[in-house]
Amino acid sequence: MTKKNAFYAQSGGVTAVINATAAGVIEAIRKSKKIGKLYAGLNGINGALNENLIDTSKETPKNITKLKHTPGGAFGSCRYKLKSYQDNPAEYERILEVFQAHNIGYFFYNGGGDSQDTANKISKLCIERDLNIKCIGIPKTIDNDLPYTDTCPGFGSVAKYIAVSIAETGLDVKSMSSSSTKVFILEVMGRHAGWIAAAGALAKRKPDDSPHIILFPEVCFNQEIFLKQVNLSIKKYGFCTIVASEGLKNKNGNFLSDSGLKDAFGHTQLGGVAQRLTNIIKEKQGYKCHYAIADYLQRSARHIASETDLNQAYSLGFEAVKLAENNKNAVMPTIIRKQNTPYKWKIGSISLSKVANIEKKMPRSYISSNGMYITKKCYEYLYPLIQGEATQPFKNGIPEHCSLKNILVKKKLKKFSLNQ
Amino acid sequence: MTKKNAFYAQSGGVTAVINATAAGVIEAIRKSKKIGKLYAGLNGINGALNENLIDTSKETPKNITKLKHTPGGAFGSCRYKLKSYQDNPAEYERILEVFQAHNIGYFFYNGGGDSQDTANKISKLCIERDLNIKCIGIPKTIDNDLPYTDTCPGFGSVAKYIAVSIAETGLDVKSMSSSSTKVFILEVMGRHAGWIAAAGALAKRKPDDSPHIILFPEVCFNQEIFLKQVNLSIKKYGFCTIVASEGLKNKNGNFLSDSGLKDAFGHTQLGGVAQRLTNIIKEKQGYKCHYAIADYLQRSARHIASETDLNQAYSLGFEAVKLAENNKNAVMPTIIRKQNTPYKWKIGSISLSKVANIEKKMPRSYISSNGMYITKKCYEYLYPLIQGEATQPFKNGIPEHCSLKNILVKKKLKKFSLNQ
Repeated sequence: MTKKNAFYAQSGGVTAVINATAAGVIEAIRKSKKIGKLYAGLNGINGALNENLIDTSKETPKNITKLKHTPGGAFGSCRYKLKSYQDNPAEYERILEVFQAHNIGYFFYNGGGDSQDTANKISKLCIERDLNIKCIGIPKTIDNDLPYTDTCPGFGSVAKYIAVSIAETGLDVKSMSSSSTKVFILEVMGRHAGWIAAAGALAKRKPDDSPHIILFPEVCFNQEIFLKQVNLSIKKYGFCTIVASEGLKNKNGNFLSDSGLKDAFGHTQLGGVAQRLTNIIKEKQGYKCHYAIADYLQRSARHIASETDLNQAYSLGFEAVKLAENNKNAVMPTIIRKQNTPYKWKIGSISLSKVANIEKKMPRSYISSNGMYITKKCYEYLYPLIQGEATQPFKNGIPEHCSLKNILVKKKLKKFSLNQ
Repeated sequence: MTKKNAFYAQSGGVTAVINATAAGVIEAIRKSKKIGKLYAGLNGINGALNENLIDTSKETPKNITKLKHTPGGAFGSCRYKLKSYQDNPAEYERILEVFQAHNIGYFFYNGGGDSQDTANKISKLCIERDLNIKCIGIPKTIDNDLPYTDTCPGFGSVAKYIAVSIAETGLDVKSMSSSSTKVFILEVMGRHAGWIAAAGALAKRKPDDSPHIILFPEVCFNQEIFLKQVNLSIKKYGFCTIVASEGLKNKNGNFLSDSGLKDAFGHTQLGGVAQRLTNIIKEKQGYKCHYAIADYLQRSARHIASETDLNQAYSLGFEAVKLAENNKNAVMPTIIRKQNTPYKWKIGSISLSKVANIEKKMPRSYISSNGMYITKKCYEYLYPLIQGEATQPFKNGIPEHCSLKNILVKKKLKKFSLNQ
């Protein structure tokens, strides 16, 4: 009997370590006696829809190793969420058609909540049709908002980046504050969950260390209390550093970044939350402010990635293949925390039906009573995730990244039009 | 004869390696048979004006070593430019009074062009008054705009940060571009000189590598040519990454960041250049854009500092003391490039009167003919400066920084009011 092949796709926003997960999947399959080739989707699930399958067997072992220190998504990712089968059966039929045409018996979908949901839906369909295709979700999201796993690969490295960045910029502001900038705001990602913002607190060792204020999307912004806290920090330490989540909302539930700015033509312009906070502080308190917007810097900063995060990302990819080899279906490998100090973890697994469409926000017990910092409980949870510095080779002063050949498999089917 | 003491002050915006220069000064003076104690100004030259002198002899050798991996300014810096003696004699008199009260015979001023000018003015005054005080400037500026030195400490580390950051974010954007963000803009410092923006080009090894466009303050922004280049890049590579200098100006000489945005009260709001470029691209081309504003992140990122820069920063501090010991006055130690590959450099020196008030901008021969990239000549100049990764110790996942005791010397004079 011919061995069945596998299909792997990256989904949604990429991370500093998603390619480590890809390396885990590829290396496990290369060792597998049960699974044939691994095809990766060019640009995620669109690779399946368009029959753009990358033959990963054409890549050298050396380049696969290099994936572990290459940020971004090596095969391309995409922002594309499949509708339900009822709403768009053609897409599901097409995916199954492509899977069958290329003898695919294993589907690994590497993404956040939406991707786990999609993997679950495809799994159900395969069972209904009596197709022997194992569907395994692999967690990935810097937002850290997947349930049933201690953490999500990608998050630990963003957390480390944010903590290191606010520690360093905090020292900068501290030294300038007597005559210049008194307030510094670091705007970080997290539309709905404040995990990334919370990680800033890992920089603090002494009371005057940065950050002094953390603003979460889970806590409604209260301008009065905020400005009081800014003043307090400046009075105590001479300066104030703030980590602000882009998803910060006011009491009406609107994003604070929806600032009401209009350009010369009267068009509303979306500023960032840092810009908005800066304007408030300048207008109400007159302090000199600076802000940085970390944007993609934070999720691609492989150069300061967490070794713990990198190891977990790789292991989840590797173990996802093991689950498939052991005939598991519609599951996602997870991280189980065994102990805190020193941090010990192992790989578990959970049914996709349980994971799908649940968003794990910061529990209230992780946020301090004034809503602008984390609690000890949160610190205990977070600090293990940034431990270890994931090394990487440099060449001419710049990190060495791999560039895959990404050779496509010959197509067997007719062209497919998306949204047909 | 009692040994004369020395005074050291940090000036202007701090860098990832200015404390390494401080370490060089301190360690050289600790070895000196000629110079007594080293007092550091609390918050730069304001420390002299207010007689806030930090006794660096109270710090442990271990903490001085730690300065080499601590960003920011360990004694505080300030943005304060002394007027001419004619315009404000009181400040000069006060500085000399403080120097004499504390038996200071050596003045080390660590800063950019303005600071070299101040050091020069004080030196002239000391000569006029027949005071035996040696005034030595020590270069520091991320802007890399001091003349007569191959480079300025602080710049190489910012350059490395920018190159690494655009390499990493470029991979992120590349992997998302088929269905999401197509254009990414990294806004970097440099109000008048484009050296920092230029450093982004060090990330490029292959044609599709980031960045695809660099925007300099030296080149007037041409919207039409810019948008054409964005389109070209997207057509060729599927995405476009841009490093934009905050000092980018339009043909009328106005900053592009002066965007004409007004808030709800009709107040003009200053956006950043990245935000402005994003709005132009969205409006004219409709591409999905993202931008990051590096702000203080870039100049405090000791975790990715250039080893070359760090070594130069330390050596310039150390050799500044040697110059003083050798009775040199009104000079600044410089970096002399001996050869390019491998980069070899030595310390030279230049008269402060030559350095003061000259701003070294990017020569036109360093900018490509279309005004949106660097030339090979510029690359040859830049790449040695980011070589080597300056290591640093980590503790619990975060870089270990030092925190000095900063014990002040007992005051001997009456209080001084600034701008009296």
